Amino acid sequence: MVDFITNHYPLVTLAVALIALLYVAITTKRVLGYEEGNDLMKKLSRSIRAGASAFLKRQYTVVAIFFVVIAAILGVMAILGILNPYMPFAFLTGGIYSGLAGFIGMKIATACNDRTANACQHSLNQGLRVAFSAGSVMGFTVVGLGLLDVSVWLILLKYVFAENADTITNAIVTFGMGASSMALFARVGGGIFTKAADVGADLVGKVEAGIPEDDPRNPAVIADNVGDNVGDVAGMGADLYESYFGSLVSAAALGVAAFRQTANEITMTKALIVPLLLAAVGIICSILGTFLVRTKENTDQKSLLAALSRGTNFSAVLVALAAFPLVWFVLGSQYIGLYGAILAGLLAGVLIGKATEYFTSDSYKPTRKLAANSETGSATIIIGGISLGMLSTALPIIIIAVCILGAFFLAGVGFANGSLAFAVNEGLGLYGIALAAVGMLSTLGITLATDAYGPIADNAGGIAEMAGLDPEVRERTDALDSLGNTTAATGKGFAIGSAALTALALVASYRDQIIQLSGGKFEFDMRLMNPAVLVGLFIGACLPFVFAALTMESVGKAAQSIVLEVRRQFKEIAGLMDGKAEPDYKACVDLCTRSSLREMILPSVIAVVVPVIVGLLLGPNGVIGLLAGSTATGFLIAIFMSNSGGAWDNAKKYIESGAHDGKGSDQHKAAVVGDTVGDPFKDTSGPSINILIKLLSVVSIVFGALVLNFNLFNLL
Amino acid sequence: MVDFITNHYPLVTLAVALIALLYVAITTKRVLGYEEGNDLMKKLSRSIRAGASAFLKRQYTVVAIFFVVIAAILGVMAILGILNPYMPFAFLTGGIYSGLAGFIGMKIATACNDRTANACQHSLNQGLRVAFSAGSVMGFTVVGLGLLDVSVWLILLKYVFAENADTITNAIVTFGMGASSMALFARVGGGIFTKAADVGADLVGKVEAGIPEDDPRNPAVIADNVGDNVGDVAGMGADLYESYFGSLVSAAALGVAAFRQTANEITMTKALIVPLLLAAVGIICSILGTFLVRTKENTDQKSLLAALSRGTNFSAVLVALAAFPLVWFVLGSQYIGLYGAILAGLLAGVLIGKATEYFTSDSYKPTRKLAANSETGSATIIIGGISLGMLSTALPIIIIAVCILGAFFLAGVGFANGSLAFAVNEGLGLYGIALAAVGMLSTLGITLATDAYGPIADNAGGIAEMAGLDPEVRERTDALDSLGNTTAATGKGFAIGSAALTALALVASYRDQIIQLSGGKFEFDMRLMNPAVLVGLFIGACLPFVFAALTMESVGKAAQSIVLEVRRQFKEIAGLMDGKAEPDYKACVDLCTRSSLREMILPSVIAVVVPVIVGLLLGPNGVIGLLAGSTATGFLIAIFMSNSGGAWDNAKKYIESGAHDGKGSDQHKAAVVGDTVGDPFKDTSGPSINILIKLLSVVSIVFGALVLNFNLFNLL
Repeated sequence: MVDFITNHYPLVTLAVALIALLYVAITTKRVLGYEEGNDLMKKLSRSIRAGASAFLKRQYTVVAIFFVVIAAILGVMAILGILNPYMPFAFLTGGIYSGLAGFIGMKIATACNDRTANACQHSLNQGLRVAFSAGSVMGFTVVGLGLLDVSVWLILLKYVFAENADTITNAIVTFGMGASSMALFARVGGGIFTKAADVGADLVGKVEAGIPEDDPRNPAVIADNVGDNVGDVAGMGADLYESYFGSLVSAAALGVAAFRQTANEITMTKALIVPLLLAAVGIICSILGTFLVRTKENTDQKSLLAALSRGTNFSAVLVALAAFPLVWFVLGSQYIGLYGAILAGLLAGVLIGKATEYFTSDSYKPTRKLAANSETGSATIIIGGISLGMLSTALPIIIIAVCILGAFFLAGVGFANGSLAFAVNEGLGLYGIALAAVGMLSTLGITLATDAYGPIADNAGGIAEMAGLDPEVRERTDALDSLGNTTAATGKGFAIGSAALTALALVASYRDQIIQLSGGKFEFDMRLMNPAVLVGLFIGACLPFVFAALTMESVGKAAQSIVLEVRRQFKEIAGLMDGKAEPDYKACVDLCTRSSLREMILPSVIAVVVPVIVGLLLGPNGVIGLLAGSTATGFLIAIFMSNSGGAWDNAKKYIESGAHDGKGSDQHKAAVVGDTVGDPFKDTSGPSINILIKLLSVVSIVFGALVLNFNLFNLL
Repeated sequence: MVDFITNHYPLVTLAVALIALLYVAITTKRVLGYEEGNDLMKKLSRSIRAGASAFLKRQYTVVAIFFVVIAAILGVMAILGILNPYMPFAFLTGGIYSGLAGFIGMKIATACNDRTANACQHSLNQGLRVAFSAGSVMGFTVVGLGLLDVSVWLILLKYVFAENADTITNAIVTFGMGASSMALFARVGGGIFTKAADVGADLVGKVEAGIPEDDPRNPAVIADNVGDNVGDVAGMGADLYESYFGSLVSAAALGVAAFRQTANEITMTKALIVPLLLAAVGIICSILGTFLVRTKENTDQKSLLAALSRGTNFSAVLVALAAFPLVWFVLGSQYIGLYGAILAGLLAGVLIGKATEYFTSDSYKPTRKLAANSETGSATIIIGGISLGMLSTALPIIIIAVCILGAFFLAGVGFANGSLAFAVNEGLGLYGIALAAVGMLSTLGITLATDAYGPIADNAGGIAEMAGLDPEVRERTDALDSLGNTTAATGKGFAIGSAALTALALVASYRDQIIQLSGGKFEFDMRLMNPAVLVGLFIGACLPFVFAALTMESVGKAAQSIVLEVRRQFKEIAGLMDGKAEPDYKACVDLCTRSSLREMILPSVIAVVVPVIVGLLLGPNGVIGLLAGSTATGFLIAIFMSNSGGAWDNAKKYIESGAHDGKGSDQHKAAVVGDTVGDPFKDTSGPSINILIKLLSVVSIVFGALVLNFNLFNLL
């Protein structure tokens, strides 16, 4: 059986990918069978759906132009022979699949917001069932499409073009550029949209007009709900598609590279398929896990959380068990240490998630202390939140450091002549780091499901409010939403941790590609004392700062335009405040769409252009420095901004639950300032940086030949 | 003459150091001759002086314990033979001189605050004359003591112990640890004191009690003024002493290292003395520059600024001219490219200063745009300030990158056989980078004078307010203060830029030391692919975040205790608000002293302990990664925090000058929130990080032998 798998691995992974998509189809059919609720709810849901679809359509149109331009450039490079001919097509498929993952996630989410609200009219449990099912459609769409994309290309390369393992991995590692570009556009564009609408709606609605959140009189309220779908759902879908896909292809490439010098074609192929099979096993385990997410009717929030945890923990344990025979039988006992690397990744993901939860949940000291800062006003809560976020980088750094060292050295452990032996092997070590990332993401199907249902519940709450449903319904959707915050913290841990590991793996792939491209002639001098490396490191370290600044500024600019529009409507539409006239929701949605699409261009272009320019000026050594620098600070800034934002959000909710004089107090106002600052931190800049650091690497890989042949250092 | 200088260089530098200190003595005598003003002014000045002296006394006592402990550890290491025997003593002198620089600066500043206020009763010009003279006492104390410390040690090593150049530089590069430790304590402790008092005074005084700034009824007002002296003056003095000293010794060490393989003892000695002579030349040129800082009576602010610029520009041009013959005659035409490196440093300092000014002065677009953010409330001004600061890192990074590359490659240029030739030489290149830092700081005497007079003018304003002087006086001190902001921006450019270059030079010195210590046996594998380097890089990159978080939290905690004390006094002291009873100023000063001394311990200990632990776990390769990572992110975070803070400060002042509805408006309140957040950013965390990155390097150097012999990687 091992031989069959080794010989026909793309068919095996294709089969599992199709199983995942079949699960998606069945779940979709089931979830669409739920009732949508009354006419007003249907109408509201339709407005949100229409707005979100319109945004995605226009966004994808803009992105399509970018893709055509880049594909054309790649095409010219392919014709000139400095790029393999599959590349332009692979670039396009990566983008299309990534966009598709976001699109499907958004479709199901907007179809289920009213259904979730309606289900919450019956019970909390039914609400969870609808929202979680919708979330799992998203989760398994992402992993299914990811594995499908890889499998189809492998089938083409292996059976149609009859390439060997070496060429195959060289080709597929570059596929990531399409997925990463699409993901960056989706995260940045969607993130700007959602936060501009949110901040804009709050600033005029809550603060100036004094009407509550999600009040139908607020002209920006639909835009706000649309934002949740295009940012938190579609953006997240494209983002995690990219993470998943990136970890798979970089691990495959490093596996082949690890055995290039020493082993035959068969071992290289085996190393190539281990990450893919691990992903396949993870999908099966995740599907099994979803069946455990069920509770009795009339249950409380705590047992709901237990149900969710049961599902994800079961899947993780199952993967941990299944990965052992996988490594043992496919690669052989000689490389069993790689199993340790996979476990290290799984464990690190869980621990980073716990650390995130500790720093951002109001059940723990840091967020409670932050809430107490509200006693002395908004300045102290801002200072407190920033220092909380900065401090919270230490634990994940240590976890990731131990994981890197563990994966690297464990990879050198294995049975030789019947006894366990150890030898440091750099190639295997880097492969181990990449496998740790795959291990971390192997249960993405179910962890993403527990993550993605949060925004759906959030939307359901909005619809319940706007449709004037019983306050109990809103309480239930809020309970689901806050539950989602806890599971989302874990999800974030996996996303951030895997981004760092995958980025490192991609840096290693970059080195291999350059050496391969130069026919072994180029010798890296990546010592930190080399000024090109140092300068690259400095510039790379700076990029996440600049990127975060630009995206935050964009949110500010877009929000400002919403503020003006909402003010205008309040002034010009007679009877709006009395509920006699309807606001022009569509105008706000359009405005958000236009401004966020305009603002997403610059940051994305920078991410593509800078590594090429640095490469042309400083050569491949400078690029290696750039990638290492951007990975290190990118990882830190992503954690800092996500956790500061998350803690402010939860500190505000904690105060709203009655602490520090509760809602409406001065303390609450201070906490709202913190939350508003945290919005672009956690939902726009922070998550985009995870994509940025990988996009920089894949862009460098794709333009590697160009940089290798034409750079200023060649002249020295 | 060149031969005489080469043979007796320590005597030459000693002579110049004494000239600087003579200039200090003369200026001090002159400035103390000015009138102090009326009795109330004298009394206020005395209170501030007493508070500042009490703080420094207690601070130095705490720090002394730390120094004794570390010196004992070093002593044991010296006895065991893994450290050279001069080291414990050098460590102590570095600390003592650094502390002395801060102490003298503080003494003269607190003696001149009432004198400046009094002089401002006559004219703006007289005010400038007093404040600038006091500032130049501080400036030339720093450079004089710095050069004195090096010279005395060189005399001892050369004439008394008869060591060769190699041993001498090995010894003196480690001297920096004392200076850096002292500087870190001074900056962190003083920074916490000043900002806790400032924030505490504002939160209760301005916001709760509704009394203006510097109102004598506010119990924290004296503490606030004491803070300016212990933080902005004594802290800055110790800080810049450390920068200056660090750049000198690292350049000397790299000079010797550059010629170790290829040249004889004489060339090594010449390379050792070039940075010292450059510093000596810089001191002379700076003294000459101060004579140009004079204006006519009845002048306006613009021509005052012109007078200050005339002084600094003249000194810089003079140094640029004098450095050419210095390099030519001492090292010879073969190494004339090093002159280019010095120029690159000077130029980079000026340009970073300009970039800082652009991003933080309200004469330019960024700060004006930030002020406009106040229209939509405090959340948007916070987001705007953070993104401004993050974005402002790009220009300095590019400038420093070009400077590094320029200095590195220019160092390889020189005359060979009568024609200009070029060859890449890593040793010379690193020496070039270190010389660029020395070049940047060569005019520190006068640039620090233009920087240090700001807080003196600030204090003078406080005294004018409290003593109820004519409002015109306050206007004049404000004019001086705002002038100081502009010149301080330039000063900051030099401080930050030189910190990055010196930190890099120290990293290079670390490598040399380890190789020397191992007798050439240890081979660095500082490729970024080495997991020890990578993990070190991640941890190093994280340290500035953690450090910034801890120091900000400390300010918050200390400020909170001041708030409680001020509230208590307002409640318990009858007649305080009516001006009938005097508040207990001393209680607030004591409280600030205690809490800031308690809070300064942890961050400082972390800076000393972490590099040793990382070294023991990951070995010297891990330490190199750590140092590179902390230098890169430290540089970025220092700029980010300084510029965000500076821009918020000036945006607030811009609004107070009448823009966006002026003082008292909602926009102004939003700007005050920004300013309060910015206070610990720019005056506590930001500047401390500049010291942190160098301290990490020198600690690593000092404990190099320990790490080399006992680390976990040795077991692999």
